[in-house]
Amino acid sequence: MRMIELIHKKQQKEMLAENELHWMVSEYTRGNIPDYQMSAMLMAIYFNGMEEIELTHLTEAMAESGDQIDFSNIDGFTVDKHSTGGVGDTTTFILVPLVASVGAYVPKMSGRSLGHTGGTIDKLESIPGYQVELSENSFIQQVNDIHCALVGQTGDLAPADKKIYALRDVTSTVEAIPLIASSIMSKKLASGAEGIVLDVKVGEGAFMKSVKEANKLAQTMMSIGKNVGRKMTAVISDMSQPLGYAVGNILEVKEAIDTLKGHGPEDLTELSLVLASHMAFLAGIGESIEDSRSLIEEQIHNGKALEKFKEMVAKQGGDASYIDHPEKFDIAGRQIKLEATKDGKISEINALDIGHIAQILGAGRETLKDEIDLTAGLVLNKKVGDSVKEGEIIAVLHTNKSDDELEGIQDLLQQAIRINWIASPNKLIHKTID
Amino acid sequence: MRMIELIHKKQQKEMLAENELHWMVSEYTRGNIPDYQMSAMLMAIYFNGMEEIELTHLTEAMAESGDQIDFSNIDGFTVDKHSTGGVGDTTTFILVPLVASVGAYVPKMSGRSLGHTGGTIDKLESIPGYQVELSENSFIQQVNDIHCALVGQTGDLAPADKKIYALRDVTSTVEAIPLIASSIMSKKLASGAEGIVLDVKVGEGAFMKSVKEANKLAQTMMSIGKNVGRKMTAVISDMSQPLGYAVGNILEVKEAIDTLKGHGPEDLTELSLVLASHMAFLAGIGESIEDSRSLIEEQIHNGKALEKFKEMVAKQGGDASYIDHPEKFDIAGRQIKLEATKDGKISEINALDIGHIAQILGAGRETLKDEIDLTAGLVLNKKVGDSVKEGEIIAVLHTNKSDDELEGIQDLLQQAIRINWIASPNKLIHKTID
Repeated sequence: MRMIELIHKKQQKEMLAENELHWMVSEYTRGNIPDYQMSAMLMAIYFNGMEEIELTHLTEAMAESGDQIDFSNIDGFTVDKHSTGGVGDTTTFILVPLVASVGAYVPKMSGRSLGHTGGTIDKLESIPGYQVELSENSFIQQVNDIHCALVGQTGDLAPADKKIYALRDVTSTVEAIPLIASSIMSKKLASGAEGIVLDVKVGEGAFMKSVKEANKLAQTMMSIGKNVGRKMTAVISDMSQPLGYAVGNILEVKEAIDTLKGHGPEDLTELSLVLASHMAFLAGIGESIEDSRSLIEEQIHNGKALEKFKEMVAKQGGDASYIDHPEKFDIAGRQIKLEATKDGKISEINALDIGHIAQILGAGRETLKDEIDLTAGLVLNKKVGDSVKEGEIIAVLHTNKSDDELEGIQDLLQQAIRINWIASPNKLIHKTID
Repeated sequence: MRMIELIHKKQQKEMLAENELHWMVSEYTRGNIPDYQMSAMLMAIYFNGMEEIELTHLTEAMAESGDQIDFSNIDGFTVDKHSTGGVGDTTTFILVPLVASVGAYVPKMSGRSLGHTGGTIDKLESIPGYQVELSENSFIQQVNDIHCALVGQTGDLAPADKKIYALRDVTSTVEAIPLIASSIMSKKLASGAEGIVLDVKVGEGAFMKSVKEANKLAQTMMSIGKNVGRKMTAVISDMSQPLGYAVGNILEVKEAIDTLKGHGPEDLTELSLVLASHMAFLAGIGESIEDSRSLIEEQIHNGKALEKFKEMVAKQGGDASYIDHPEKFDIAGRQIKLEATKDGKISEINALDIGHIAQILGAGRETLKDEIDLTAGLVLNKKVGDSVKEGEIIAVLHTNKSDDELEGIQDLLQQAIRINWIASPNKLIHKTID
């Protein structure tokens, strides 16, 4: 088999066969196919796309390129959730205990991340003692015992994806739906859950800028998952403004705890209930999706979801008293209040800009070696559509940075949060696909 | 400037600016842009093409990446010819002295080549003593003295093209008209002639398989040349069957001498007259193209073109007596006659297959280190459309190979030369563009 012939086929819009894709991925991962041939292939895929079955084979090949987590020793149906990423998205903390509390098995692995704030794993480490690293056996044991675990990703999952992603990043081939879908789904297939709920974000703060694009990505990932026998549901949710009010590591953990206690922000609560209902429904809990939703809502009201979170934190060595007493969490040295400059309505809270501001405040990292300030970030007091009066506090910045380090941040805030006479908030949930 | 941004622009069908293309070509040539980014760019160009002005800038940048031959010390208008390559194409030997004999300046540089037969330079070396290497000064001096010189290419012309071509060859991006055009024209711009006649071949034995493609390539090369101030004409000529009767190095030289003497094959003669007329006309010789043609034809009839060839050969140290006595050329050890297997008409002489057969007989090389057998090749007795009788000799193979080494060649010949009840020969000249 010769790579140039595979490139030529894709260039001519012919379909690549299963054995060709497996050969390509495994030879590329081993370094036997040079980057310059793979980048030509990626660009040809960018232009000519991939058929559903072809893309499934590519994704499987990528999933099989490294370690694969075996969940067959878990006693029941396993569910996972994947979000395509946004600002202030704290749903993972809420969903894992919430869905486990109705009886599904939620073996959740998350990563550290580059970006505006840390990843789920960074955020968890703000709870003293919490162990994010478990052996595979302990991980599975814990899921069997209490139905959930939330750990850092271990092993070498989908190394082909890492290598291909790094190449896409420097060859302008990141923004191709088949490549985005195979990248995400290869890791999801390698980490094994039987049911997967996708939260595909759309808007300024998301990778997908239009509902049409988000829908295409969701459909593509769904088809890959279903083709390999996974149960799949996708929700397309808004990311034009940050989810909830808090952006920043500890600030978001506290907001997730609030939500588990039943008094979280309306949008974060609603999205969590929707995603959790679908996860539970995929796991066979509930006769209908409405039924699953009632069961899920009940777990918030009766405090069992919160109990499950405390149980999981304790099981993984964390100090669960922080859940009952969030005031124990560290707090940043400085709180800076942002006041409205005029009367009106909040017409825009640009998620991308807010993420960027959180990073300047110290919440994120640019390289994996950078230290994150877990206390840094900001808490909004308003959502798009809310009325404000001049002088009213619309957000509080949390930071340990000096004024010099924060130079220019006022301008960025003015740009990010707009006040106008009219405002038209987006729908939270654009679409559900199953 | 960042390469990824240039790739992104091309991917979005935006036009790359002159300074961007110059930066890209010079940084790539120096090794500062990795192959994997250039191959992504080449694939994006394959899909999105290039605007005429953009392609001109790319080609200029490639031409300026290495040595550039300066013809400003030549006393008059210089003309060159470029053929996109075919089988049995001996026009260079004919055109150089023919066009020089009417007063134009023809400083011609040719290469050695990989393929079915050697390049022009290999063929010239069949004339004992002929020096293919001249210093730039001697080369220009000779052109001023006798209006022509035919030498091997020296210097490092368009190294960017060499590097880009090698990458295209392994990334399935050879067959893109803008890339083919910039590759050819970058070398033509670097080697300096003021007027260029392009002979774009079309058919089985050529790179361009349809007149439409050939036309597009011709138009693209013309526009690049004209944009940088060169005078350009293009002729689209047939390469479904070999040009002339002879295929092989010495065999072709002899055929070229025959043509200069006025008794060459009809097609080779006609194409040479057409190309020579256009070269002369570009050089301002002749009031009209018909007038140029009359002047050119006259130089064959009065023997002055042949005299010019002898003068050039002698000037470059070659034994000109071979021109008067072609029987002095070496001849292959074996002549094998091919007989028609039935009555009918020659319906096809597949140029590509014939080229392949010539290579098997010993006429070509696969790598630049291979030795060429200058005596090997074949001489056809027929052209497409000619009638044959069973047992009539349709070709003679010239070779020094053993029967074992030639195993299977009879089958190849049967495939290459078809006899049928009907035959429809292609036009020799499909189109002229100026």
